[in-house]
Amino acid sequence: MQIYPPLVRVSPRLCPLFPPLLPLPLLKRKRSNNFRASMDRSTTLSRFPRLPHRDLMLDLIATAESLLSPDLLPSSVPDDVLSFQNEAGTSIGSLDVRSGSPGSSVDFILESWLHCQIPNGALDITTLFAFLNDSTDAPHFLLEIIQSSPTSLILFLDLLPRRDLAVDADYVDKFYQDTQLDKQRQQVNKVPQVLPYYSNSLYIRSILSPTAIAVHINCGEDGQGVMEEIVRTQVESAAKEVLQIWFDKCARSSKQMEESERAYMLKRDGMIKTKAIEIDLAANMPRLFGAEVANRVVGEIHKAFGLRT
Amino acid sequence: MQIYPPLVRVSPRLCPLFPPLLPLPLLKRKRSNNFRASMDRSTTLSRFPRLPHRDLMLDLIATAESLLSPDLLPSSVPDDVLSFQNEAGTSIGSLDVRSGSPGSSVDFILESWLHCQIPNGALDITTLFAFLNDSTDAPHFLLEIIQSSPTSLILFLDLLPRRDLAVDADYVDKFYQDTQLDKQRQQVNKVPQVLPYYSNSLYIRSILSPTAIAVHINCGEDGQGVMEEIVRTQVESAAKEVLQIWFDKCARSSKQMEESERAYMLKRDGMIKTKAIEIDLAANMPRLFGAEVANRVVGEIHKAFGLRT
Repeated sequence: MQIYPPLVRVSPRLCPLFPPLLPLPLLKRKRSNNFRASMDRSTTLSRFPRLPHRDLMLDLIATAESLLSPDLLPSSVPDDVLSFQNEAGTSIGSLDVRSGSPGSSVDFILESWLHCQIPNGALDITTLFAFLNDSTDAPHFLLEIIQSSPTSLILFLDLLPRRDLAVDADYVDKFYQDTQLDKQRQQVNKVPQVLPYYSNSLYIRSILSPTAIAVHINCGEDGQGVMEEIVRTQVESAAKEVLQIWFDKCARSSKQMEESERAYMLKRDGMIKTKAIEIDLAANMPRLFGAEVANRVVGEIHKAFGLRT
Repeated sequence: MQIYPPLVRVSPRLCPLFPPLLPLPLLKRKRSNNFRASMDRSTTLSRFPRLPHRDLMLDLIATAESLLSPDLLPSSVPDDVLSFQNEAGTSIGSLDVRSGSPGSSVDFILESWLHCQIPNGALDITTLFAFLNDSTDAPHFLLEIIQSSPTSLILFLDLLPRRDLAVDADYVDKFYQDTQLDKQRQQVNKVPQVLPYYSNSLYIRSILSPTAIAVHINCGEDGQGVMEEIVRTQVESAAKEVLQIWFDKCARSSKQMEESERAYMLKRDGMIKTKAIEIDLAANMPRLFGAEVANRVVGEIHKAFGLRT
């Protein structure tokens, strides 16, 4: 599980190997005015391959921005992080981060697109990550899709717990049982092409909730149409429902906590952020993008995460 | 997941509906002298149906007792908990508990057998549970097999974490990564008849480790031979390996802890015990055995768990 891959904005000049594959349908999408100019963004994202989950991610990101609009500050990510690539132009990426506005429960929203040519094909990783701050103990939102071919993808969709669930059964009830989140997992798991996915990292497995959707969808050879259908129906339905639950129950919640509780939660959040960077980005980014680009992008994620670089 | 069902010792007088199905092969098994008289025990257990996992559980329990022999006190469970049944004799059970000896890291070992006639057939639940005390933070051992027919069973096999893994990545490495526990999960999950099993209780899902084996083995109609083969090979191999890892790395470990760490761990252990009883026994035991028997057995488990009744 690559939790925090970078969100990519690529200009044609920087990315000769990836001509626009989409005739700018994104211009039709309504996006918050606070985001970088829509035209720039559309141009950038249109250069990523038209994979089955692409429209879904764009829809979800637009929904998240729209729902959270009053809670978000404009993006302040520099251009060379909004759009980056490796020297050979075989890997392109874009990372965008918007911090929560003062008084909001949102810490930041991180959106990330990554496309890499690898020896056996291409790897596409797209992530939407919404972290809350210490005014609440409600879970964070995570959606990540890792696609290695048009017929095979890995999906992580979860509300990441911020408490030790073994100690806090009420938290399990409040955010996972009462919200009926498991129904979404059950629906996705019913699809014949869906198998459970176990991250190689035992730590990553440990931070997921008991209703996490962590699956490998494999449609076999010539299964591109089937994959598109699964993404457009079951995956889209689950992702939208989980995002809505997160918005309704978490994104604007607040919680009175004792100082020791808050300190423990922040330590927990900090460890998750640190380990996720260590496990995913520190290992993969330099290999895919070279040290300089990797440092720049990881540095920006460190900043968003409130970690020391 | 029924974590703490009771271990059954049933006399022929008490259990007319369950004549001996096994010609006392258990007499051949070497058991610790500290246990209740072997003859009694064999007679009792021989009245449970000869299910595929039966010999495996007996082997494992004998191994656990043998490995831990110096660390265990004799059983002090009263006869009417070592053997109990409901009024109609359609449900029989046996619970045995041995506490750790002074100076040992073992808190207690709980062994449990349960056989219940239910409207659609019979339900057999067997559990081996080894809890450690606060001289170490090493994981507890859990093996539970729930069988609703000769061709279908649910298996839980895990080392239950005693720390919040999201905060303690070193703990994940030490007890789960470095011990290569996940290999056992992978082996079991490779078997075509094996599917992941998700407990209805989200809390129970939350207390399992990232390498937990929680699976449903379904061999379909006429699959009794296949089930026996799977239990005798893959399940037995995984269970023995996990028990050995637990013995080597956990059962005799010790750990210097600050008082606050120890207090947190004991709170965590206590919550797991309390919730497991609430979720499993409080809901099921009265229904299967009647209030009086249920109170007696649950009371004994409370005592073993160090909980107030």
